[in-house]
Amino acid sequence: MKQSTIRDIPGGVTAVKGVRAAGVCCGIKQSALDLALIASDRPATVAGVTTSNRSKAAPVLLCERQLKGGRFSAVVANSGNANACTGSQGERDAAQMRDRLARILDRPAGEIFVASTGVIGKRLPISKVLSGIRKGFERLSVEGGEAAARAIMTTDTHPKQAAVSLELDGKPVIIGGMAKGSGMIAPNLATMLCFVGTDAQASAPLLRQVLRRAVGNTFNAITVDGCMSTNDIVLLFANGMSDAPPLKAGTPKLVAFEEALSQILSRLARMIVKDGEGATKLIRVEVRGSRTAHDAGIAAKAVADSALVKTAFFGEDCNWGRIMAALGASGIRFDPSRVEIALDTIPVVRNGVGLGEAAERRAAARMRRPEFDLTIHLHAGTGEAIVLTTDMSEAYVRINAGYRS
Amino acid sequence: MKQSTIRDIPGGVTAVKGVRAAGVCCGIKQSALDLALIASDRPATVAGVTTSNRSKAAPVLLCERQLKGGRFSAVVANSGNANACTGSQGERDAAQMRDRLARILDRPAGEIFVASTGVIGKRLPISKVLSGIRKGFERLSVEGGEAAARAIMTTDTHPKQAAVSLELDGKPVIIGGMAKGSGMIAPNLATMLCFVGTDAQASAPLLRQVLRRAVGNTFNAITVDGCMSTNDIVLLFANGMSDAPPLKAGTPKLVAFEEALSQILSRLARMIVKDGEGATKLIRVEVRGSRTAHDAGIAAKAVADSALVKTAFFGEDCNWGRIMAALGASGIRFDPSRVEIALDTIPVVRNGVGLGEAAERRAAARMRRPEFDLTIHLHAGTGEAIVLTTDMSEAYVRINAGYRS
Repeated sequence: MKQSTIRDIPGGVTAVKGVRAAGVCCGIKQSALDLALIASDRPATVAGVTTSNRSKAAPVLLCERQLKGGRFSAVVANSGNANACTGSQGERDAAQMRDRLARILDRPAGEIFVASTGVIGKRLPISKVLSGIRKGFERLSVEGGEAAARAIMTTDTHPKQAAVSLELDGKPVIIGGMAKGSGMIAPNLATMLCFVGTDAQASAPLLRQVLRRAVGNTFNAITVDGCMSTNDIVLLFANGMSDAPPLKAGTPKLVAFEEALSQILSRLARMIVKDGEGATKLIRVEVRGSRTAHDAGIAAKAVADSALVKTAFFGEDCNWGRIMAALGASGIRFDPSRVEIALDTIPVVRNGVGLGEAAERRAAARMRRPEFDLTIHLHAGTGEAIVLTTDMSEAYVRINAGYRS
Repeated sequence: MKQSTIRDIPGGVTAVKGVRAAGVCCGIKQSALDLALIASDRPATVAGVTTSNRSKAAPVLLCERQLKGGRFSAVVANSGNANACTGSQGERDAAQMRDRLARILDRPAGEIFVASTGVIGKRLPISKVLSGIRKGFERLSVEGGEAAARAIMTTDTHPKQAAVSLELDGKPVIIGGMAKGSGMIAPNLATMLCFVGTDAQASAPLLRQVLRRAVGNTFNAITVDGCMSTNDIVLLFANGMSDAPPLKAGTPKLVAFEEALSQILSRLARMIVKDGEGATKLIRVEVRGSRTAHDAGIAAKAVADSALVKTAFFGEDCNWGRIMAALGASGIRFDPSRVEIALDTIPVVRNGVGLGEAAERRAAARMRRPEFDLTIHLHAGTGEAIVLTTDMSEAYVRINAGYRS
């Protein structure tokens, strides 16, 4: 019942049939790209996930309403200004962005999405944005994917794109997307924007199911600084322009599609963590043997978010005592005297006590690598979870003491 | 019904009648004081609060057992080694410390307390510690309070002591204490040791009540890095050596005593935050108008622990958007469009939106001061809470990337 191999292909969202994009400078930022458009030639179905922060930005509130319609033609996203904490004026500005793009594209307003990222609490320079939308429309192209991915960056140091191809019933299907995010990255969601398209065909409710599951294991399992944003939006749209038959619930084809989607999101999530503000290392924190999977998630996040653990990672010090302290403070139930901790394949703690300085030195040598795994076994059950995190460097403080986000 | 004025007096725990202390170097640290003794000439009643971290250090487990007896003659505390995550060996070491001091003082083992702070996961150099206890015993004196306060320091930059006098029924009563703590400071408890004595007379259950309430508003309301320690212990002992009659529940005398105790703990808690690792500022975060007091505590801690808010404090940037984001991520219920935020007396947010750049500039000017207040009104009820916090500087990262704690 193997459907096909999932292959990485170059590009991002515009690798998908019938999708064009553009990135322009509308003037929110001095001279950098700050406005992205992504448009589908044919109206698509759509699903989305938005921040669970109670202080939701105006474009997030708008997206949540648009998602109920389940239809997508295009999204406009700006960086440099989050249009968050901007009250009813902010909501009017977001609606203007939607309406302007709808008119230019000659599509119903209900199919147009809006996203913003950047400084919180300042009004959007709306006339610049509206002119930018016209300019972006004129530049929409298959080649515009990277410019669009650049135009949604804030403290990111590089654009983030990924695309895969797979075959469903012998017909090629593409999934491609872009993401931004670097600071204010916390589980549920990570602070980010992510736009993924596919030329597969699927109903909006089916897309929603698939997207929720895929986000749970990817964007909801990364952290840079534990700070949850006001502006997170993940959109997945499907324009059905491939020749593959529609996806249906409970079929092997859907399993293959979901696997491919998870791969894309997982690559984008990983790029976000690697590009974390001031990050010098990528650490995969895996908790096993907790009472429940929920407990494992709490424990993994507690370790992954601890400032003391993260500064020790930066210092390349196998300071497992701070890991024990973070686990103990997480609130979950476990017996400290049964805990095992390993760094990559090197055990450093067994039965809750350290295995000595030789082991720690070997582990510390591994910590000089740019990526390593931290595995924690609680021996309290069968729960498991994985969270990707970074170290915390002086550069993180420098960036955030100086940058208005 | 006014009982008396509470007066600050010099010194710390040895300002209390019948209390002597010593600080010596037993050799855990290279050449700094690392072992403290505090002894009461007359057996005292005692109450305590210990860390709620599940990974409790051996001395914490021992203290919890000793506290059931409710009697106190002395405490021995070392710095440089936390005796945490040391398994059954650690428990035997802690018991040896207790037994050695009991023998030297000729008091029952049940009246002797043990505390440790410093590196997690290394075995105590127990023979050095045991010799140190003898050395400390020989130096016990009223003058030894400051040396003892120094001997419990880890990354603290100065010893922390406080004492007050008050009169109960015309008889003088003293409360005096010491504390340590700088990093791994989080609400519930702050990472710390604190030993407070009084020559008042009170039953152990009464002391417990009073102490719990006082800790709730002081040590449980401070944060430096949101990391909870494995070793926190607060002890309050009362040796009854003043001529004042015993304290009784529900009396104005008890109210006066409790107020004096809160004053001491509050001064020590404030000293800990001011001495926070890498801290350059002390910020009082006050949340008002939440649905419940519990909600207010959650919201205040969410703001006080946010890495993005704390780096903005360090950058002296009135970045209230990050405060709104932290409130929204805290999980409590409120309407963002009703939020008010003020920095000292300067309003910067009303109805959830910013009051403009002039206000922000005035607020930023206040943030250059070493201490300021952040007041958040949610207009959702009558809940209130206050948390003291610090900024987060590059020095915090530097200290913790290099220091083994």
